[in-house]
Amino acid sequence: MPSFVQTDTYTIRQYETDAHSRLAAPALMNWMQESANRNALDYGIGITDLARVSLGWVLTRLRLRIHRAPGYGETVQLITYPTAMEKYFIYRAFRLLADDGTLLAEADSTWLVFDTNRRTMVSLPPFIRSLELPTGLVPSAQLPMKPAFPALSVAADTRQQERTVEWFDIDHNQHTNNVSYVRLLLESIAANILQNQQLAELDLYFRAESRWQDTLQLLIKPVAGDSFLHRIEHTDGREVLLARSVWHQNK
Amino acid sequence: MPSFVQTDTYTIRQYETDAHSRLAAPALMNWMQESANRNALDYGIGITDLARVSLGWVLTRLRLRIHRAPGYGETVQLITYPTAMEKYFIYRAFRLLADDGTLLAEADSTWLVFDTNRRTMVSLPPFIRSLELPTGLVPSAQLPMKPAFPALSVAADTRQQERTVEWFDIDHNQHTNNVSYVRLLLESIAANILQNQQLAELDLYFRAESRWQDTLQLLIKPVAGDSFLHRIEHTDGREVLLARSVWHQNK
Repeated sequence: MPSFVQTDTYTIRQYETDAHSRLAAPALMNWMQESANRNALDYGIGITDLARVSLGWVLTRLRLRIHRAPGYGETVQLITYPTAMEKYFIYRAFRLLADDGTLLAEADSTWLVFDTNRRTMVSLPPFIRSLELPTGLVPSAQLPMKPAFPALSVAADTRQQERTVEWFDIDHNQHTNNVSYVRLLLESIAANILQNQQLAELDLYFRAESRWQDTLQLLIKPVAGDSFLHRIEHTDGREVLLARSVWHQNK
Repeated sequence: MPSFVQTDTYTIRQYETDAHSRLAAPALMNWMQESANRNALDYGIGITDLARVSLGWVLTRLRLRIHRAPGYGETVQLITYPTAMEKYFIYRAFRLLADDGTLLAEADSTWLVFDTNRRTMVSLPPFIRSLELPTGLVPSAQLPMKPAFPALSVAADTRQQERTVEWFDIDHNQHTNNVSYVRLLLESIAANILQNQQLAELDLYFRAESRWQDTLQLLIKPVAGDSFLHRIEHTDGREVLLARSVWHQNK
C-alpha cells in the first residue's frame, strides 16, 4: 500500500491576517485541519470513512511553534503526514514553509479514535493500524500524553470569563471545533500582549468535548517568561482544554 | 487604460462550511472582500494605494442573494468588477458560479471614499473617477442609498444582546471588519431558524464604524415572511449597521 504526504499551497488572504497584518493563528490551524483531512481522505481514513463504521477522530494533543508568521499575499506550503502509530494513538506532523523553503511554523499532534455508539475511545481499528507511514522525512516528536505544563486551577491571580458556544463555533457533528477553542483562548489574552507581542508557541491538551449553546468558563493565568496557562471548562468544572501559550516581542 | 474583471477560483475548505456542511455566509463574504481587494489592486486603487493619499474605502451598502450554498470540496468561481461610478459612489457586483456555470449567489455593493485626516467622506478623486469600467457584462443593480426596509427601533418584540468587539474582529486599521458584523448578526438569529432554515438574502446598510473593545448592542426583530430586521448600535444608540435577513426552509 502506498504512503501519502499531503502538500497544500495556501496564499494568505486578507481576512486570514490579524490586526498586525500577519497570518492569524486560528487561520493557520484551519489550514492544518483542512490539509490533515485531505491526507486522511487519501488514506481512506477521512471523517466520512470513519463515520461509516461509527468512529470519529479526536484531536487530543497539539503543540504548535510559530517562527515567523507570513503576511498578506505570501504563498506558503503546508506539509502534513502521519508519523507513528501505537495501539491507541496516531501521530501527525505539520510543517509550514515559505516559498524559499524557510520553516515558518511546525506542529506535532496526537489523535485517537472514538466509538460514537459506545461513547468511548477505542484502540485503532485494523484498517488504520495497517496503513503504511511515509519514511525518510524530518524526524518528528511524539508528544507525551501529559503535557509539560501543570493544569491550571482557580487561584488569586486567575482571571475568568464566560462564553457561550455559538453557531459558527460548531462542526457538522454539532461539537465545538478545535480552532474555536483556540480563538476563545487567544481572545482572553490581555490587550497589551495582543498589541505588542506575537504568539510563539501553543501547547494544547484536549480533555472533553462541548456543544452548541454550552456555557464555557475561560481561565487564564500569567506564568514566568511571557507565558500563560489556560483552562477551558464546563460550568460544572469538567476540563475541556488545558493549554499553555508563549509570547515573544513583535519584531 | 484597461478594465479589469477579477475571477478567482475557490475550493471550499471544511472550516468554511457551517453545521449544515454548506458554505457559511461569513466565509463567502470573506472571499468577496478578498476578490474585491485583488480587483482594486489591478486598478491601482487597493487599500494601500488609497492609504498613501490618506484615503480609505468604506462599504456602505451590500445586498447578497444566495441561491444555493455549495458544499465541502466544491470548486467555485467568484467574479467581481466595478459596474458604475457617481460623484461619491462606486458600485461593485459579485457573482458566484458553480463549475457548470450555475449562478450560486450574487451581490451588489456600494462603496465610498473616506478622508482619514479630515474624518469625512469625500467625492471620488480623479484617479478613481477616470478608471475604465468593464462593459458587456451582466447588467447589475445600483442599490439605492436607502435600503428597502425600515430602520429597526426598540419595541416590545425586539430582542437585544450585548457584544464586545474582539481582537480577531478587527482589521489592521483597528476597525471592526464588515464580516464580523455579519457573523454577530447571524449569531443573534433564533436557534430553530439556524437549525432548520438557510440564509437566502442579506441586505446591509453600514452607518458608522466601531473599534476594538467597543461594546455593541445587537437588536433583532422578526418580520413577515421568514425575515428579520437587525440593528447593531453603539451603547449611546448611534447606528452601526441596519440590516434585513431573509431565510428559506432547508432543502
